Amino acid sequence: MTVITLTTDFGRDDYRAGLLKGVIWKIAPQVEIADLTHDISAHNILEAALVLQDSVPFFPVETIHVAVVDPGVGTDRRAIAAKIDTQYFVGPDNGIFSLVVKHAEVYGKLINFFKLENPNYWLPEISNVFHGRDIFSPVAAHLAEGTPLSALGTEIFDPVRIEIPEPFARRDGWVGQVIHIDHFGNLSTNLTRAHLPGSGTALVEVKGRQMIGIVSTFGDRPPGTLVALIDSSGYLSICVVNGSASQTLGVNPGEKVLLQAVC
Amino acid sequence: MTVITLTTDFGRDDYRAGLLKGVIWKIAPQVEIADLTHDISAHNILEAALVLQDSVPFFPVETIHVAVVDPGVGTDRRAIAAKIDTQYFVGPDNGIFSLVVKHAEVYGKLINFFKLENPNYWLPEISNVFHGRDIFSPVAAHLAEGTPLSALGTEIFDPVRIEIPEPFARRDGWVGQVIHIDHFGNLSTNLTRAHLPGSGTALVEVKGRQMIGIVSTFGDRPPGTLVALIDSSGYLSICVVNGSASQTLGVNPGEKVLLQAVC
Amino acid sequence: MTVITLTTDFGRDDYRAGLLKGVIWKIAPQVEIADLTHDISAHNILEAALVLQDSVPFFPVETIHVAVVDPGVGTDRRAIAAKIDTQYFVGPDNGIFSLVVKHAEVYGKLINFFKLENPNYWLPEISNVFHGRDIFSPVAAHLAEGTPLSALGTEIFDPVRIEIPEPFARRDGWVGQVIHIDHFGNLSTNLTRAHLPGSGTALVEVKGRQMIGIVSTFGDRPPGTLVALIDSSGYLSICVVNGSASQTLGVNPGEKVLLQAVC
Repeated sequence: MTVITLTTDFGRDDYRAGLLKGVIWKIAPQVEIADLTHDISAHNILEAALVLQDSVPFFPVETIHVAVVDPGVGTDRRAIAAKIDTQYFVGPDNGIFSLVVKHAEVYGKLINFFKLENPNYWLPEISNVFHGRDIFSPVAAHLAEGTPLSALGTEIFDPVRIEIPEPFARRDGWVGQVIHIDHFGNLSTNLTRAHLPGSGTALVEVKGRQMIGIVSTFGDRPPGTLVALIDSSGYLSICVVNGSASQTLGVNPGEKVLLQAVC
Repeated sequence: MTVITLTTDFGRDDYRAGLLKGVIWKIAPQVEIADLTHDISAHNILEAALVLQDSVPFFPVETIHVAVVDPGVGTDRRAIAAKIDTQYFVGPDNGIFSLVVKHAEVYGKLINFFKLENPNYWLPEISNVFHGRDIFSPVAAHLAEGTPLSALGTEIFDPVRIEIPEPFARRDGWVGQVIHIDHFGNLSTNLTRAHLPGSGTALVEVKGRQMIGIVSTFGDRPPGTLVALIDSSGYLSICVVNGSASQTLGVNPGEKVLLQAVC
Repeated sequence: MTVITLTTDFGRDDYRAGLLKGVIWKIAPQVEIADLTHDISAHNILEAALVLQDSVPFFPVETIHVAVVDPGVGTDRRAIAAKIDTQYFVGPDNGIFSLVVKHAEVYGKLINFFKLENPNYWLPEISNVFHGRDIFSPVAAHLAEGTPLSALGTEIFDPVRIEIPEPFARRDGWVGQVIHIDHFGNLSTNLTRAHLPGSGTALVEVKGRQMIGIVSTFGDRPPGTLVALIDSSGYLSICVVNGSASQTLGVNPGEKVLLQAVC
């Protein structure tokens, strides 16, 4: 049973996410469809790229991921489909698959991108503002039904890429930043386990508040405590136990995070 | 594989929408279930009718649409099921299927309504306040399992109807209104492509702000620009590129929209 | 077709709920997955217990319920799986299944709890903060594939229990409290049909406002009226017709509710 996932900024209060399932099941009645999320911040391509990076490894081989965060819909931005390692991706060519590509490159996996050009695999009528419905969903459904990528259009070698900012090294440690804030108000950073000091105790500082040591889980400290931990995706994350670090600190994505060793 | 869709005002923060799936799968284990939306504004029948109108054409034949926006639950309002063109509909008789009916009438499609009277197809116990669980979902599941509409009750010919307000003509154009505001803050109106001037350039005015010309997509103008376009359902829509027209203009459904030609 | 349900406090704006489906379908491609709700208030175990209590009876036999409201993740709180009557349950041992257990005890149903100890049924890597992904979802998927509970670990007989506060009797009636507030602002209490006076008319009082008589449904009174009714789960509920009792009365869970008879 093939799985198709949906990642969009349509919002859960909107029916458009549900409508895509009609389009898909009309072409491919046997697929399972998972909403990854429809609450990407409007037009926030980086946020969708992070969600895909964290989620894709947990899906079955041959899963097809449809991602529609598409501020350029109806302009000359390309529509694309790709096979990256063992899974498929369909969406706008705006960098939304960049972090999955980056990960695949590190591990030397196969990466093939195609420009969507063949309207035989789209809905008969194409609106200028809803390619999720008219192009991406039907293409995903046709892939699930066995259409090869090469039937969809021409192979391309220059998909648009976006990068997450890299931490930079200082004499005494690293300067990273908050990349994403989750539902619980946890602050995810671009610092990883690899940036932790090899010896001594880690000191994390954000907005003048310091945390000494990396805890292994929330329950290691009493409710209300500000803690730094390695989150389930491997990133250094700043959290308030049973609370919201985002609210406590008044922090937005982009906020500087210092990481150094103390003895 | 039969598809059942769910459209309710239960809210996504509520478990009742999930519970309906238990009821359905207990009777019809093979169906696929799509949440169309559970975030219809509380008791807003017109909003649900608009969602169904826009979504139904994209679902497979034989799809069964359950719609539960039901302020009259437990009173003597009728419970109904219908076949409209190739698809099925189950819900309260309060006009929620009106716009699907209207569309089917325009195209001369078959329309058959039945009053739900046969408790053999309901749950054994019927609460006064949750017919979505006790009547509509089990009826939909039995339809999916092959029960004919005529087994559910008596055919009726006078289902309740609601109408969306029609634009009216002025000497120099049309006066329409905002019908719906979506997740992005786009203002959907009751004006369509058919109301656009045959010659000259369209001028759209709402709350004293004028837009000259209809753009073909968001990307045609810089972020922040107020634009008028024909949306993916064929309606004239007023939008702010990468922003919210609703917030920018402070507009609610019902706001007057003028459409005329300039030379 | 086996059904797996998901009940969490991850929030619908988060992708983690969708990610669990990948984990499950990778192991058990044939299951159907229902989101019961992902909007349990953060860390609110009682709220999740109430949702499960109300929903479980409507799901098919052999359904597997995964519940992840888990403030103690990564500490020494146990991870558990259970068979209660005809259905399965997987989650943290923090009382989240208490109310289902209580109901099963009343009816003399079979109840078997096991501590999750066998990592063969988990993901290869276990994070300290996301056992929903790394332990509970894979265990549920293996149960769906036919793994017996006894393969997962040791049977236990002392799962953690939480209780909902019981109403207490007064000379002239009962004192209960608001237990839960739903999406519509209806106030669900711990008083049930069994607490209603045997003769005379019921008088309900909350925050100085009195309701005389129990209505059978919302439509029995005009919009805006404050009413008391027996809700679809059998609890006394205080509602405003087509409105929000929570907003009207400014009430939170825990608020005292008086129930007595008038002649």
